[in-house]
Amino acid sequence: MSDHGTQPSDTGPTTPDQQVSQGEARSGQAPQGHSASPVYSLDAHTQRYAQRTAGMTASEIRALFSVASRPEVVSLAGGMPNLAALPLDSLSEEVARLVSVDGQSALQYGSAQGVPQLREQICEIMALEGISAHPDDVMVTVGSQMAMDMVTRIFCDPGDVVLAEGPSFVGALGSFAAYQTDIVHVAMDDDGLRPDALRETIDNVTRQGKRIKFLYTIPNFHNPAGVTLAVERRAEVLDICAQHGILVLEDNPYGLLGFDGQTYPALRSQDPDNVVYLGSFSKIFASGLRVGWVLAPHAVREKLVLAAESATLCPPTLNQMIVSRYLSTHDWQGQVKVFQEQYRERRDAMLSALEQHMPAGCDWTHPDGGFYVWFTAPEGVDAKEMLPRAVTQRVAYASGTGFYSGEFGHRQMRLSFCYPTPERIHEGVRRLANTITDELDLVRTFGSAGRRPASGPQAPSPDTA
Amino acid sequence: MSDHGTQPSDTGPTTPDQQVSQGEARSGQAPQGHSASPVYSLDAHTQRYAQRTAGMTASEIRALFSVASRPEVVSLAGGMPNLAALPLDSLSEEVARLVSVDGQSALQYGSAQGVPQLREQICEIMALEGISAHPDDVMVTVGSQMAMDMVTRIFCDPGDVVLAEGPSFVGALGSFAAYQTDIVHVAMDDDGLRPDALRETIDNVTRQGKRIKFLYTIPNFHNPAGVTLAVERRAEVLDICAQHGILVLEDNPYGLLGFDGQTYPALRSQDPDNVVYLGSFSKIFASGLRVGWVLAPHAVREKLVLAAESATLCPPTLNQMIVSRYLSTHDWQGQVKVFQEQYRERRDAMLSALEQHMPAGCDWTHPDGGFYVWFTAPEGVDAKEMLPRAVTQRVAYASGTGFYSGEFGHRQMRLSFCYPTPERIHEGVRRLANTITDELDLVRTFGSAGRRPASGPQAPSPDTA
Repeated sequence: MSDHGTQPSDTGPTTPDQQVSQGEARSGQAPQGHSASPVYSLDAHTQRYAQRTAGMTASEIRALFSVASRPEVVSLAGGMPNLAALPLDSLSEEVARLVSVDGQSALQYGSAQGVPQLREQICEIMALEGISAHPDDVMVTVGSQMAMDMVTRIFCDPGDVVLAEGPSFVGALGSFAAYQTDIVHVAMDDDGLRPDALRETIDNVTRQGKRIKFLYTIPNFHNPAGVTLAVERRAEVLDICAQHGILVLEDNPYGLLGFDGQTYPALRSQDPDNVVYLGSFSKIFASGLRVGWVLAPHAVREKLVLAAESATLCPPTLNQMIVSRYLSTHDWQGQVKVFQEQYRERRDAMLSALEQHMPAGCDWTHPDGGFYVWFTAPEGVDAKEMLPRAVTQRVAYASGTGFYSGEFGHRQMRLSFCYPTPERIHEGVRRLANTITDELDLVRTFGSAGRRPASGPQAPSPDTA
Repeated sequence: MSDHGTQPSDTGPTTPDQQVSQGEARSGQAPQGHSASPVYSLDAHTQRYAQRTAGMTASEIRALFSVASRPEVVSLAGGMPNLAALPLDSLSEEVARLVSVDGQSALQYGSAQGVPQLREQICEIMALEGISAHPDDVMVTVGSQMAMDMVTRIFCDPGDVVLAEGPSFVGALGSFAAYQTDIVHVAMDDDGLRPDALRETIDNVTRQGKRIKFLYTIPNFHNPAGVTLAVERRAEVLDICAQHGILVLEDNPYGLLGFDGQTYPALRSQDPDNVVYLGSFSKIFASGLRVGWVLAPHAVREKLVLAAESATLCPPTLNQMIVSRYLSTHDWQGQVKVFQEQYRERRDAMLSALEQHMPAGCDWTHPDGGFYVWFTAPEGVDAKEMLPRAVTQRVAYASGTGFYSGEFGHRQMRLSFCYPTPERIHEGVRRLANTITDELDLVRTFGSAGRRPASGPQAPSPDTA
């Protein structure tokens, strides 16, 4: 069964899908990316790599992506926002003005902390979720991914424990693994992270003599689980962490993408001293600009700036100024409403198609915002093994295994409704339902249930019952 | 004397100077950035940081920068390219077209490896220095800084040795220190890295039982030393490294900025299997876009892409497409010639001002390209201690101490001629000469020679005699 092993650093679906969007054939790369592969004798540098590099393995899913990217395949795998509604013409004029009038500064190096005016605007955005913050405590990053990398860099030694929901964002798991941390999952249910499970996990880890550095959590419209941390649980989660001296790393890229315009109070708003907050313009404006941010207690923010200088010197000035101008010259909140409506329509298309087509025994979450539905197939289906057959049936998804550190998620899939049109989503779900039905027929005929340990109390997949 | 200690991670002059360019007052930050400072009791997170974070200390020079950025101060400290000659109007039109016509892809996530067309163009650029490479072996990065970070990430465990010229680029030293490597300097002279010193250093390090992972070198128009590795030394340096199983990390941001249009054969052109090559558009186009690249043997490049996914997910798509369009629609090589002429004029201004104003006992290098003169003050002057007095005399420079790991560079300064006009350069050098003359008077009156160990055989500053 070792061939099913999922590495914590499996960078999985988001990036590869994006890579495909660039029209790149990456075939043949995945096998070479595996350190266990005999192909590796071709690498004259094998003996030179750092220990951490052994944990950097390419997603097994990648080999499929050159196939999955064909236009006839409906991809429910990626996390690309739908940018079709962006006002490109007026944005183009604004960017042109920026380059011609302020090019000398827009094209020049900037500070590692980020453009001051943008940091002020970021504080205004965070105020929408109840956060009161000073621009000096904000650092702009090359997307939230860099913020995760920097936070892990300053806090984590090899062997330190990071707590993360199970499942969790694959990119975050990749950052944590790159610093050789020990990722321990905490169970969720339909109301998000379970406080009782958090307490139990902390006790278990502490009993093993390990040190927990922080809890990584996506409270709103979770990626990939599609659930939201109940408001009444938030203070409890914060209390538990504070009591145990555990920092909270709150990742909130989807917070403004509630389908009814609802927002939730940020964890940071309730405990400014023990929460490091991550935000991003990738989902509310434009992902390709790679502008995210981190808000941290002042002394932590100072360390983050020092770390960022050694990582990228400074984030791109032009991109920061584009975002800043966009925020001040466009109705960005009206644009967020347009996104909300688009994604709600797509979520509705996915949920109704799932109801209509899926065989008995399937479960899925019902997100109120964000990009993703977390789907659980009937007993006997292995989502990772089934993927090539799904692609043959012209539908792709992200196998649940990529969202865990360890042997979890084999019956799960992340289904994205952000990018394809409602019609394509419906068709994709129909094909997926057919694939699962065929798979269940195979299982009934040849028997493959039991190959995988059944989900026991250790399996931290969200309770979707 | 411990108060003069320079940390390897001193991020020194380049970024802080840039920060000042953003109009930020950073006063009060530097003291808090020092872990030894009593102010640190304010940081509730002190006990939580990773071990590597202890090595991340803010430059002592920073406290001066809010003063040094005043318009009346001539800054010879920064490394900002002069962008005044860029064709902003036509560039603005090109960028506008890009956003309005191709905004859907330019503003979307891309691959971690980078836009394929740009990687092809990068190969054409590298061909100018004799490099034959395939676009699949190129990865685009958020500036060369990220490339250094990624190379160190995949190769270096804590305690591994990195060899670097003494002095070396402060940003590279910061990256190496962030991975807790042991930086060992190799002496240079006017012809760049000394092969005999390289051999000797390798022997010394090996005898101590330490493992050398790579040699970091800037062969052309060195930052900060202003010297170029003699062509006849290049094969020898490569041979020595190959013999000892040491990878070569060739950093070449200034290679096309030779003042007579001269280029040198890249180390990578002579040993494709043992050289990882770093390039950048920061100095030949626009630094604020943060577009650099790394060319590596194929298996290494694969590891770099995995590392980059966990660091930033992907570099900004818009920026890559802007560079690609600029290369294909503008006479970029003609523009490089304009830069060469500008910088040559500024170099000439600096050298003639140094000749005219400096007192006896000073030495400096005579760069044939790039941005920097490396200056050695007479015995008795401590460049780091003198800096506040220089700023009072309305001139700023980068103290040599920032360019070493360890106790070197106290008599040295990096003088940048890239950004100020020739007139300002002349005036700045005149003020600096006055400051040094006053300092020598002080030394003669009160005596301060001998506070610092004289440069002995261990001092790896370039021989400027």
